[in-house]
Amino acid sequence: MAKPEQFAVILAGGGGTRLWPASRRNRPKQLLSLGASESLLAATFRRLSALLGPERTLIVTAADQAEAVREALPGLTSDCLVVEPAPRNTAPAVGLAAAHIARRAGQDAVMAVVPSDAFIRNEPRYATVLRTALAQASQAIVTIGIKPTHAETGYGYLQTGAKVAGNAEVCHVARFVEKPDLLLARAYLASGDYLWNSGMFFFSAGRLLTEARQHLPELSALLDELCVSPDPIALAQQRYPRVPAISIDYGIMEKAQGIQVVPGDFGWSDVGSWAALSEIRPTDVDGNVVSGDAIVKASKGSVVMVDPGAPLVGVVGVEGIVVVATRDAVLVVPKHRAQEVRSVVDELSAQGRKEFL
Amino acid sequence: MAKPEQFAVILAGGGGTRLWPASRRNRPKQLLSLGASESLLAATFRRLSALLGPERTLIVTAADQAEAVREALPGLTSDCLVVEPAPRNTAPAVGLAAAHIARRAGQDAVMAVVPSDAFIRNEPRYATVLRTALAQASQAIVTIGIKPTHAETGYGYLQTGAKVAGNAEVCHVARFVEKPDLLLARAYLASGDYLWNSGMFFFSAGRLLTEARQHLPELSALLDELCVSPDPIALAQQRYPRVPAISIDYGIMEKAQGIQVVPGDFGWSDVGSWAALSEIRPTDVDGNVVSGDAIVKASKGSVVMVDPGAPLVGVVGVEGIVVVATRDAVLVVPKHRAQEVRSVVDELSAQGRKEFL
Repeated sequence: MAKPEQFAVILAGGGGTRLWPASRRNRPKQLLSLGASESLLAATFRRLSALLGPERTLIVTAADQAEAVREALPGLTSDCLVVEPAPRNTAPAVGLAAAHIARRAGQDAVMAVVPSDAFIRNEPRYATVLRTALAQASQAIVTIGIKPTHAETGYGYLQTGAKVAGNAEVCHVARFVEKPDLLLARAYLASGDYLWNSGMFFFSAGRLLTEARQHLPELSALLDELCVSPDPIALAQQRYPRVPAISIDYGIMEKAQGIQVVPGDFGWSDVGSWAALSEIRPTDVDGNVVSGDAIVKASKGSVVMVDPGAPLVGVVGVEGIVVVATRDAVLVVPKHRAQEVRSVVDELSAQGRKEFL
Repeated sequence: MAKPEQFAVILAGGGGTRLWPASRRNRPKQLLSLGASESLLAATFRRLSALLGPERTLIVTAADQAEAVREALPGLTSDCLVVEPAPRNTAPAVGLAAAHIARRAGQDAVMAVVPSDAFIRNEPRYATVLRTALAQASQAIVTIGIKPTHAETGYGYLQTGAKVAGNAEVCHVARFVEKPDLLLARAYLASGDYLWNSGMFFFSAGRLLTEARQHLPELSALLDELCVSPDPIALAQQRYPRVPAISIDYGIMEKAQGIQVVPGDFGWSDVGSWAALSEIRPTDVDGNVVSGDAIVKASKGSVVMVDPGAPLVGVVGVEGIVVVATRDAVLVVPKHRAQEVRSVVDELSAQGRKEFL
């Protein structure tokens, strides 16, 4: 049997408010560069297209973000952009990609489904882990679990089980668990059995379609038709908006049998808040991350991000503070409370100030 | 003898960086409203013109600020604007005003010289103290000393001596002292003998000219000529830029004899830093002063000032922080370090970024 073709599917449809004011509805987190020379999406695309070829690196995105994605990724092949006709969460989005791949390369083709907005520090090690997962994806649903470096309460975890026979780099997944409280997170860390859920999943197109048949029949009916339709785009336009919205985690991963995991340790972060910038960007001698037109004096452990076109920012004498300035909005929040940016976004939403959302 | 005419002389020539980024070279502190409905200058002009009449309320200002002053004070009478041909500090500026007043109303006319950028909470009590000082100004140089409410290190002090015979509201000044350190400030406060130097001085025009003759001969020569010149404005244009620059405190007050003081207690602040906003503006239940387009959540004892045209500011979870946003610059500094804004201004200056100064 020939080695099945390998595809990447980058999920780039999300919004998210945790990096407000930089992230907005029309400028989601994955399109932000956050002080680096490329956006999180561009970095993800670069890593995967280097590994699998740009012609096999797909982006699934929302209709209203397709143009921004095209602009952000000059290397994107035109038939690699899969546009969701309407936002239905990740299970339908992955299904759409699976049908696309099955049409192009058959049901045996395997796919690496990855978020578009994660940070990877050690790219060579990431590539190695990804290859292992892709190789295993013909036989099982595989995920990558990140070896925890601290008792993080912001991530979901998975518990590892026995090693997979004949493959020292792969384990069975005993169970997935929700974001824990701090005590539980410490216990997970101490046990050595738990890994962070990276949201990366690997399987064949056929396996995804089979799982959908079992767990998501309405979606499955559409996907099976899409695999054979003479005009799949028109069909999706018509039917996709009515499939139930559900995440791939709840819709498939929690129900599927025999999921396997490749543990990875490559400096991963989901960049879940401004506080994460201290982990993913170089700091000065005082532990500050400073980007853009800012003057930072006598300060420690702080994050100061200034967009082009934003006012100049002067920061003096602070410790552990996040200051983010865009053209039209400024955020000031302690690093350890960075998640509470939501309260500002909620207030703006309550005030109907859509220009800031 | 008829009661001498009484004038106010508002010194509005200063710059100052302590309220950066709101204050700039072209928008000095006295022109800022700082969240109130009128600027500090407008409030000063309103208080004094109510007391003495607008036709006897003079403003001394720098040439490059004259237009802004006119705009800020629609009630300003045209012959009440005294423009310094060049900045020579306060002694020459007061001298210019004294010559102006001597020409208009004779050397017996008395003048209340006041800064343009102080805050006064209790205006009726201020008016009473001012009337006392003005009445006494025919006989002596008089100042107003503020009863200290705390051991402030940011102000100069004066030590009171014996009461002036026959006037229970006026004391002799024993001596002026520089800004003290905290220990000394506490001792001053505990003694009950020390008052804050308000920078308000009262004397007759003739007395000022006499003092200048003794202590500032170059200035005096010009002032005496100005009193009799057929074209004093042209004369000042020509000669004023060459008189030595010196403050009224060092040039005259420290050398003059028999200075008297009226103690005052009317909620005075020189608004020396952003931290002072907590004293002079109403606070919310959490002790925050918030002005302009800001969303402040879960924060205490903070100052958030947002200018019209500035970005929206969101502040979450901070305590004792100052956040100031203007159209082109943002400042973040802890309240207790608010004076250190200077380090940002110095850096901007070193970088040659004049547009921010």
